[in-house]
Amino acid sequence: MPETGWSLHPQLENDTTPVGDLPLCRVLAIDDADYPWLVLVPRRAGIVEIADLSDADAGLLMREIALASRVLKAVTRCDKLNVAAIGNIVPQLHVHIVARWATDPLWPKPVWGHVAPRPGNNALFARFIATVRKGLEPSQSP
Amino acid sequence: MPETGWSLHPQLENDTTPVGDLPLCRVLAIDDADYPWLVLVPRRAGIVEIADLSDADAGLLMREIALASRVLKAVTRCDKLNVAAIGNIVPQLHVHIVARWATDPLWPKPVWGHVAPRPGNNALFARFIATVRKGLEPSQSP
Repeated sequence: MPETGWSLHPQLENDTTPVGDLPLCRVLAIDDADYPWLVLVPRRAGIVEIADLSDADAGLLMREIALASRVLKAVTRCDKLNVAAIGNIVPQLHVHIVARWATDPLWPKPVWGHVAPRPGNNALFARFIATVRKGLEPSQSP
Repeated sequence: MPETGWSLHPQLENDTTPVGDLPLCRVLAIDDADYPWLVLVPRRAGIVEIADLSDADAGLLMREIALASRVLKAVTRCDKLNVAAIGNIVPQLHVHIVARWATDPLWPKPVWGHVAPRPGNNALFARFIATVRKGLEPSQSP
């Protein structure tokens, strides 16, 4: 089983709230009042770089990045998505997808290395997670 | 033809040196003495987000990110690759792939929004581009 030996890195577990699992990735949300922020983590043990994934898993990751991007854009109506795999602190491969506005405090700088997430309203964050989760579900076409 | 109407954004053209074309992306290099730095630009008109690409092109982009990552890692022997599609300043979709070391000046911060590229030695940069170009060529298996 491809998931054998995989577990979420403790720092990612500590810093995020789970949204759900796609075929490849665990989807997490970071509670930041200014920047709606998802993190995708492929459930594959020992993967650090995108180039460490099999071709099939890399294809899946791209499809899940595109899906999560569309959902985050639809939910937030943001101006731009910022997508990155950095991993200088937490080596387990994880992909950030962050919603940005041309009017947000940091624009046009990226968030990474510039802000520590500032937790927002609990009820709003819970609603955000529920809305994203619903958006990520396979569409129920008749 | 998918490339119809596409041209490289003038700011990317100004800030980079061309390395070559992969099936989907133009590969560019940024002359930075501290951070070996490639940029992949899908040759598709009007694309801003990864999620704007067709499924086939998104798959191609991921394969080309993985290829360029492997080549950049092999050429630089870096500790970590940082990969990002930001586009807050230049909206044309472009993916940064940057080689990082745990000993480099900015580590563990990402480069984006933290440094302006500091041009290095011309001959070293030319050799870097030639080596990367060779690495990106289809392998000549017998």
